[in-house]
Amino acid sequence: MDTFLLALDFIGTFAFAISGATIGVRHRLDLFGVLVLAFATATFGGILRDLLIGAVPPAALTTWTYLALACVAGLATFYRHALVERLRNPVQLFDAAGLALFAVSGASKALAFGLSPFAAVLLGMLSGIGGGIARDILVARTPVVLQADLYAVAALAAAAVVVAGHQWGVPEPWSLVTGAGLCFGLRYMAIRHGWRLPVARPHDAP
Amino acid sequence: MDTFLLALDFIGTFAFAISGATIGVRHRLDLFGVLVLAFATATFGGILRDLLIGAVPPAALTTWTYLALACVAGLATFYRHALVERLRNPVQLFDAAGLALFAVSGASKALAFGLSPFAAVLLGMLSGIGGGIARDILVARTPVVLQADLYAVAALAAAAVVVAGHQWGVPEPWSLVTGAGLCFGLRYMAIRHGWRLPVARPHDAP
Amino acid sequence: MDTFLLALDFIGTFAFAISGATIGVRHRLDLFGVLVLAFATATFGGILRDLLIGAVPPAALTTWTYLALACVAGLATFYRHALVERLRNPVQLFDAAGLALFAVSGASKALAFGLSPFAAVLLGMLSGIGGGIARDILVARTPVVLQADLYAVAALAAAAVVVAGHQWGVPEPWSLVTGAGLCFGLRYMAIRHGWRLPVARPHDAP
Repeated sequence: MDTFLLALDFIGTFAFAISGATIGVRHRLDLFGVLVLAFATATFGGILRDLLIGAVPPAALTTWTYLALACVAGLATFYRHALVERLRNPVQLFDAAGLALFAVSGASKALAFGLSPFAAVLLGMLSGIGGGIARDILVARTPVVLQADLYAVAALAAAAVVVAGHQWGVPEPWSLVTGAGLCFGLRYMAIRHGWRLPVARPHDAP
Repeated sequence: MDTFLLALDFIGTFAFAISGATIGVRHRLDLFGVLVLAFATATFGGILRDLLIGAVPPAALTTWTYLALACVAGLATFYRHALVERLRNPVQLFDAAGLALFAVSGASKALAFGLSPFAAVLLGMLSGIGGGIARDILVARTPVVLQADLYAVAALAAAAVVVAGHQWGVPEPWSLVTGAGLCFGLRYMAIRHGWRLPVARPHDAP
Repeated sequence: MDTFLLALDFIGTFAFAISGATIGVRHRLDLFGVLVLAFATATFGGILRDLLIGAVPPAALTTWTYLALACVAGLATFYRHALVERLRNPVQLFDAAGLALFAVSGASKALAFGLSPFAAVLLGMLSGIGGGIARDILVARTPVVLQADLYAVAALAAAAVVVAGHQWGVPEPWSLVTGAGLCFGLRYMAIRHGWRLPVARPHDAP
């Protein structure tokens, strides 16, 4: 993986780790519980992707950088929680950044492993949404991916941009930045302006 | 995988996708959330099986048919929910069909990958129960496999029939149909007539 | 894997299976649900480890001993629940034993597969905490690893002792027993005397 992609992966790790640690602090976990939640949120999407493409052992477990980033983010959130919360909706914003960066880096890694464009789009989406799903299941709440406005759609769009760029020969940094920007923008507008898809109106269930 | 087995896999995918989408509509998810839940329910059992036998990337992520089936089932359930609910207990019935079809196709695929009869029975059961577990965990309720009458037992029986048929040289379509019929029948009788195993009577816990 | 390590693995399987079955009985599951929960608790950590190091199909699915141990533990707990509960805090004690034994055997297996010391410590911790996470998610409660005092820390310490012993050439049985004893001791003191890490004090969240 080249340096630019690795940088995106590290920033995504840090962003998801902060979102996980913030949820942990709000649930009054102890210090190590906060670190575990930060690490799980930050790495689950990438571990899932690596398992699914057969890249074992996953990078998140063999490279110490991921754990170090998650610990720094977790410690900062634990001891400077007021500062993190002063940002408006920190969980949602850092989560959106992690989602965007993992969706593009996941799609790119899947292409590098020779997967088809179709599979690369799906794997990019899964890499993006995996971390948030793990975080929410661990604190026993329904994952944000099923509730939030334009969540999986945004990850799908980011992965599709990267795969389309690859097909059309666009230089990779361009499509990575465009895809991540599109995903973050969609999530930001959805959070800020309540953009959303039609919601199910259940018929009277038995 | 031969055509007959593939057909069973596709029907199971469609059945599980409807059961997942119905749960999604009842929980008032948005359109994409319903599709995500339909896809997760429909493919998790197969993805789990493929991970466990080392068949990566899993078929559900490389073949577009699975996603297409899940989307058709999800859209139909989203826009025609009244129709789906008019069937009696649609979640349970479609879930029973998915359970039966995945248990037999899972056991058969495990045998084709050279696993032992013992492992093939276990993997068939896991393929069957995986989708329902993913669906229920995603909406934060206790998985039906732990509560419902004769649920894992039925999947185990279906997988055992397939493996026994393989050992005794019975033509595969016969044992696949017999196993799936047995599993669906057991679940149907359990739902209809309340067949069940003894329930734990906890001693007064501290 | 040599005999001593295998014995530790079997004892850990049995201990985790009893902790899972006890939770199942308390939640009034039926007989098969209790067995499923016992098997999932007993094997999920090891299956996770084997998936992550690429040792597929996982030993827990190809060797009948794991299933047999889980079934014996599950049946004993189901039909002799009063006896199990008479032990003080049986879930916590058997869980601590399983945690200790899986953390050391997981770290040792990761080293045997040629992973780096860093990855082996992480994988040992994951093998230890995986079973309890699966058990708690299946009954829809927040995993004990995020709440309990010194839980993941204890697993981490055990795995670190094994890896350090391997680096320094200590005979393996010694480091396995020391690591497991340290982990069990830490958990016991934490349960008995309320040893714990600092707890997050969330700033007023929006």
